[in-house]
Amino acid sequence: MITTPTLLLNEKICRQNIKNMAEKARTNNVVLRPHFKTHQSHEIGNWFRQEGTEKITVSSLRMARYFASDGWKDILVAFPVNILEIETINQLAAGIHLSLLVESVETVEFLQQNLKSAVSIYIKVDTGLHRTGVNWDDRNTLSEILEAVNKSGKTSFTGFLTHAGNSYMSRNISEIQAVYLESTSRMLSLKERFITEYPRLKISVGDTPSCSTVEDFSMVDEIRPGNYVFYDVSQTIIGSCTPGQVAVAMACPVVAVHKERNELVIYGGSVHFAKDNITDRSGITIYGRVVRDNGNGWGEMIEGSYLKSISQEHGVVKVPAVDFNDYKVGDIIKILPVHSCTTANLMKEYLTVSGRKISMM
Amino acid sequence: MITTPTLLLNEKICRQNIKNMAEKARTNNVVLRPHFKTHQSHEIGNWFRQEGTEKITVSSLRMARYFASDGWKDILVAFPVNILEIETINQLAAGIHLSLLVESVETVEFLQQNLKSAVSIYIKVDTGLHRTGVNWDDRNTLSEILEAVNKSGKTSFTGFLTHAGNSYMSRNISEIQAVYLESTSRMLSLKERFITEYPRLKISVGDTPSCSTVEDFSMVDEIRPGNYVFYDVSQTIIGSCTPGQVAVAMACPVVAVHKERNELVIYGGSVHFAKDNITDRSGITIYGRVVRDNGNGWGEMIEGSYLKSISQEHGVVKVPAVDFNDYKVGDIIKILPVHSCTTANLMKEYLTVSGRKISMM
Repeated sequence: MITTPTLLLNEKICRQNIKNMAEKARTNNVVLRPHFKTHQSHEIGNWFRQEGTEKITVSSLRMARYFASDGWKDILVAFPVNILEIETINQLAAGIHLSLLVESVETVEFLQQNLKSAVSIYIKVDTGLHRTGVNWDDRNTLSEILEAVNKSGKTSFTGFLTHAGNSYMSRNISEIQAVYLESTSRMLSLKERFITEYPRLKISVGDTPSCSTVEDFSMVDEIRPGNYVFYDVSQTIIGSCTPGQVAVAMACPVVAVHKERNELVIYGGSVHFAKDNITDRSGITIYGRVVRDNGNGWGEMIEGSYLKSISQEHGVVKVPAVDFNDYKVGDIIKILPVHSCTTANLMKEYLTVSGRKISMM
Repeated sequence: MITTPTLLLNEKICRQNIKNMAEKARTNNVVLRPHFKTHQSHEIGNWFRQEGTEKITVSSLRMARYFASDGWKDILVAFPVNILEIETINQLAAGIHLSLLVESVETVEFLQQNLKSAVSIYIKVDTGLHRTGVNWDDRNTLSEILEAVNKSGKTSFTGFLTHAGNSYMSRNISEIQAVYLESTSRMLSLKERFITEYPRLKISVGDTPSCSTVEDFSMVDEIRPGNYVFYDVSQTIIGSCTPGQVAVAMACPVVAVHKERNELVIYGGSVHFAKDNITDRSGITIYGRVVRDNGNGWGEMIEGSYLKSISQEHGVVKVPAVDFNDYKVGDIIKILPVHSCTTANLMKEYLTVSGRKISMM
């Protein structure tokens, strides 16, 4: 019986999401290197294995270690190398095929001086997000880094990597595809420039909105989506998925009802959901969307019912007047999270709709 | 040696914050029942004990259990009772003086039917925040709840409790004090109304901005501030504390430098800081403020240097051009968090500036 905020997982939807992307990658003859930061779970990782995944992406060395300990042998840490963790890098590189992400000559030189085993190197390219990476048109810096990488057998160049996270600003499929096309054409211009010197260089892209809505990946070599394993409210608003593809929901106890303002107070706050929010198409900022309860799982979204605000442990849920009498103190209400990655990261455990617990890192 | 994002704690500042509030409460002859959700640590709890604290506030039954296991005997769970956790309530109430927060007759009746030991009851009053609680001027509902509480010896009425969290919208001391005065005068009107029937009824208030800046607590019986144990950037902007009173800072590795836009990329994102932000007095939205590094600890804030944005693991730090050359990849940068409660909740451990680890719940 659920008595405190709990992260529910619909295994069937989740496995279907995993399968769909694996099939799309196969059809396109592109390498799928899914990002495992969303689920952070050995067991869910195995569901990817069953669909043929062998290469994965993670966002920290700690996460790389966690998955290496479960037999993953080809791991990319898609985060600029933290040189302070060279010891962990060496431990990992001794046992698996480790790929690292660089964006400066200094980091490459540090690695060459301190690595004990060889690693593969991706160069991070900024195609428009302006968070990190070398600007796609800064050919001089890219050439300098490439030159540095080639100076030692400890570092071998794999390709250029980008994360077109600006796709998250999209609100429909054509906007997502425009971001994808701009970003990918910039990556292709790099490939053209460097392919003669590096005939095996790869282009690696991958954000969930693009990977979910683009059908033709003939321009790239590798895709790295992560969030699609669960999807979430943001992805439904961006246009990456349907509500029926969202594979996780929070189950939260109702602790107070305020009929005068059609609001419920739930046990479920920023320490459970995280504080991610999104402005929906009607201009309302929401922290989650309420779905119908259908026993162990959940059903469709309830129009006009959403998580309106959260503090540390409290959530305030807006419920349309017509549905208000459906709720009383002691009920469990089910809510799709705005951002499943950060919700899962806080909850640290899943409960499948068939009642099985699945552990995380 | 720090190699990954780490939450530093300055024990001296922290103990001084604890001491200052304890002295203020003693001077005012008011009960201090500090909120322990900020630090969530047995050891830091002991620092409060050393200043005379015997009664505490927590935000969940899990937290109540954690502190009860360390010998705390008088605990208020300042969150509307989650009746689904009645088993935990009964376990706790069997061993300690447990106080619970109610705001409906239904919850009171449920407790009376299911409690195995007596508990104390506070009634939650909404004095303006409109998150939860009975409206301060809804005397009928308050009378009904009081009547219900009196029906059984299992529930004994202690008093009215409010959280004037709207003080967090303040941007100077006089704004904070105006919120405090409005909220407290509403609570006093309740006391006047019910004191004849309940001569021992208490008024319990307590948000860190009010408790830090109000000097005269003669109107109330109990205060429950929590965040003051550490303070944070928000509290410096609200006006509750000076930057020198902030007792925690994040230490984060620099993983990339972008001189062309005076930005650093750090290993430190929403899974470390949480996603709380605040708009500072110059209208800029920030996720943290950079401070000078002085070896194991930290010094003053660096004007114009702040955490500009965060994603799951990345942070982007804006640094003034004049300071930019102070940083290189592999450095540790120190940043005061916007909201210390949620940062601590994610980090799960402190490292004191003298190099000692302190564990959390």
